[in-house]
Amino acid sequence: MRMYDIIEKKTNRQTLTMEEIEFFIDGFISGRIPDYQASALIMAIYLNGMTEQETADLTSVMARSGDMIDLSGIEGIKVDKHSTGGIGDKTTVIIGPMIAACGGRMAKMSGRALGTAGGTIDKLESIPGFNVALTRDEFISNVNNIGMAVTGQTANVAPADKKIYAIRDVTATIASIPLIASSVMSKKLASGADKIVLDVKTGSGSFMKDPDEARKMAALMVGIGERNGRETVAFLTDMGRPLGHNIGNLLEMQEAAETLRGSGPDDLVEICSALAGEMLSLAGHGTVDECRAMARASLYDGSAYEVFSRFIAAQGGDISVIDEPEKYYPGIRSESVYADREGYVTIGSAEEIGRASMIIGAGRETKEDAIDYTAGIILSRNAGDHVLPGDELYRVQGLDPARFAAGLEILRENISIEEEQPPAQPLIIDIIRRKGARS
Amino acid sequence: MRMYDIIEKKTNRQTLTMEEIEFFIDGFISGRIPDYQASALIMAIYLNGMTEQETADLTSVMARSGDMIDLSGIEGIKVDKHSTGGIGDKTTVIIGPMIAACGGRMAKMSGRALGTAGGTIDKLESIPGFNVALTRDEFISNVNNIGMAVTGQTANVAPADKKIYAIRDVTATIASIPLIASSVMSKKLASGADKIVLDVKTGSGSFMKDPDEARKMAALMVGIGERNGRETVAFLTDMGRPLGHNIGNLLEMQEAAETLRGSGPDDLVEICSALAGEMLSLAGHGTVDECRAMARASLYDGSAYEVFSRFIAAQGGDISVIDEPEKYYPGIRSESVYADREGYVTIGSAEEIGRASMIIGAGRETKEDAIDYTAGIILSRNAGDHVLPGDELYRVQGLDPARFAAGLEILRENISIEEEQPPAQPLIIDIIRRKGARS
Repeated sequence: MRMYDIIEKKTNRQTLTMEEIEFFIDGFISGRIPDYQASALIMAIYLNGMTEQETADLTSVMARSGDMIDLSGIEGIKVDKHSTGGIGDKTTVIIGPMIAACGGRMAKMSGRALGTAGGTIDKLESIPGFNVALTRDEFISNVNNIGMAVTGQTANVAPADKKIYAIRDVTATIASIPLIASSVMSKKLASGADKIVLDVKTGSGSFMKDPDEARKMAALMVGIGERNGRETVAFLTDMGRPLGHNIGNLLEMQEAAETLRGSGPDDLVEICSALAGEMLSLAGHGTVDECRAMARASLYDGSAYEVFSRFIAAQGGDISVIDEPEKYYPGIRSESVYADREGYVTIGSAEEIGRASMIIGAGRETKEDAIDYTAGIILSRNAGDHVLPGDELYRVQGLDPARFAAGLEILRENISIEEEQPPAQPLIIDIIRRKGARS
Repeated sequence: MRMYDIIEKKTNRQTLTMEEIEFFIDGFISGRIPDYQASALIMAIYLNGMTEQETADLTSVMARSGDMIDLSGIEGIKVDKHSTGGIGDKTTVIIGPMIAACGGRMAKMSGRALGTAGGTIDKLESIPGFNVALTRDEFISNVNNIGMAVTGQTANVAPADKKIYAIRDVTATIASIPLIASSVMSKKLASGADKIVLDVKTGSGSFMKDPDEARKMAALMVGIGERNGRETVAFLTDMGRPLGHNIGNLLEMQEAAETLRGSGPDDLVEICSALAGEMLSLAGHGTVDECRAMARASLYDGSAYEVFSRFIAAQGGDISVIDEPEKYYPGIRSESVYADREGYVTIGSAEEIGRASMIIGAGRETKEDAIDYTAGIILSRNAGDHVLPGDELYRVQGLDPARFAAGLEILRENISIEEEQPPAQPLIIDIIRRKGARS
């Protein structure tokens, strides 16, 4: 087999076999295939596409390029959850306690993030003392005892994906549906869950701004999961406006706690109930409707918050920071912006609001940047809300008020008050299950 | 400017500017732009194409990446000739003397070849003593005194083309019309001629087997020439059968000499008269028809052969090898194949006949291979000729008869005798001149 022939096949829009994909990935990982040949093939895939089976095969080979995590020490059916990323998305830390409160299990490996606010691991690290580097035994035992655990990626998960991503990043080939789908799913397959629920975001705050593209990607990821023997359900959800009110690490943990205590914003409650319900149902706890109702109830009977407290404590975190942030972060400053007229709040680009939160200090632009865990934005009103002159519209906060002006400038450009109410978008646009799946 | 953005533009089928092409080529040559980014851009160009202006700009930048040959020491209008390569194509060594005999000039820099029989330089080296490495002064002075000279490429001509070709060669991106056209034309632009005549071959013995593709490439090369201020004429010619009877280095020199003495085969006389006539006309020696007649006459009045003798002698070659090959190459062996029935000679793949000549020893498979200058094939009858049982069909010759069997096997598969005469193809399919050019 020769890499030349594999590249040529793809330039001719032919389908690569599993053996050819293995030859490429093995050779690329080992250094036998040089970067310039890998880069030529990646560009050919970017421009000529891949079939669903080809993408499923690539995903499988990338998953097997490193460690395959063994979660067999955890009882029952393990369901993993993945979001393609959005502004104010703190669902993981809400869904975990909901599931555990209903008798399910969430063994979550999570990451940090670049751009906008931090990833789940960054959010959890805003809790003083919280340990995001559990040993394998601690991780499994916490899931078995508490029903959930969240840890950073320490294993060598899908190294082929990392190498391919590095090439894509410098060759303008990131925005490829098969390459994105295989990248996400290879890490999910390697992470050891039996079933997978995906939250595929679309709209101005997501990287898949076109709903048709996002739907294609969601369907493809479901297909990849099924072709690799993992039942997969994809939610297609709106990210035309931030999720909930708070954007920023500690701010999002506070909103998560608020939601787990039964007083969260409607959008967050809706999406968390739907995702947790789906995951519980996949794990065999009842029909989707039953599980969704059960999950939602856990927010109001104190059971989800009880798990949340135990989860934070078990990983060494001091939950008191939620209600008393000044105890650990003295000198938090904030600046509010008020409505100057009556009307309806209208969001320009949700992505820009994410960028504003990063500029204030909530996120990293490069891997080396430090995060201000207290920094972020509180949208006192979200898109579509009615305001009167003098109502608080939004507030920025953080330890370094010198950073506020640049963030406020972006917010001013992207949050306006209009006479007409913007048309309401359904939050959950669609749920994509495999053909002939449970209803 | 960033290479990333240039790649992205091309993935979006946008047109690159001269400045962007310069940024790419300068960066690639200097090593600032890594191979994997160059390779991604080349694949994007391969799949998404380039406009004629973009291709002309790329050609210009590649030409200027190395030495620009100065032919101003040669009087008059310098016309260069280039063939895209075919089986039995010995036209350069015939056309040069024809042009010089008619008062024109041919200052030709030529190359070696891989696969099939050798290139022009290899053919000339079959003449004992022939020097293919003239100094610049010898080259110019020979052209001025004799009317022609042929030398190997010693200058650093279009190094960017070499670097890009090396990437294309391992990434399955050779067969791209804009990349082939810019590669050929960059070397022509750097070689210093004022005007250019191209012989673009199509059919089974050429690499552009589809006449429509070949026509597109011919038109594109004419456009590139014009956009770079060099009047360019492209001949579209048939390579469905070898040109002339002889394939092999010394064999082709012998057939060239025979043609220059007025007893060449019709196809060779026709194409050489047409190409030489066009070049003479471009240099201002008369109309195309006048120049073609004049060039043809030089084959029959002894004037072209006279130049040929002086040209060979001036570069140190002993022309007696043409008529007495055994003097320098003792022990030439040959094996003939005779017709076993009456019918018409039919050629399968001309390319395969070229491959047979290489296997017998006339060409190199890799750069390191040595050539047997005597080796090759004599097609006693060419496609369409009528044969009777017992007529000689073809003959293989060379110093190593052990190599004959494999070559003969390929010839057997590609030269047959059929009851129906194969349809005759016009040798010169079309002549592509710029719009509004001389008629």
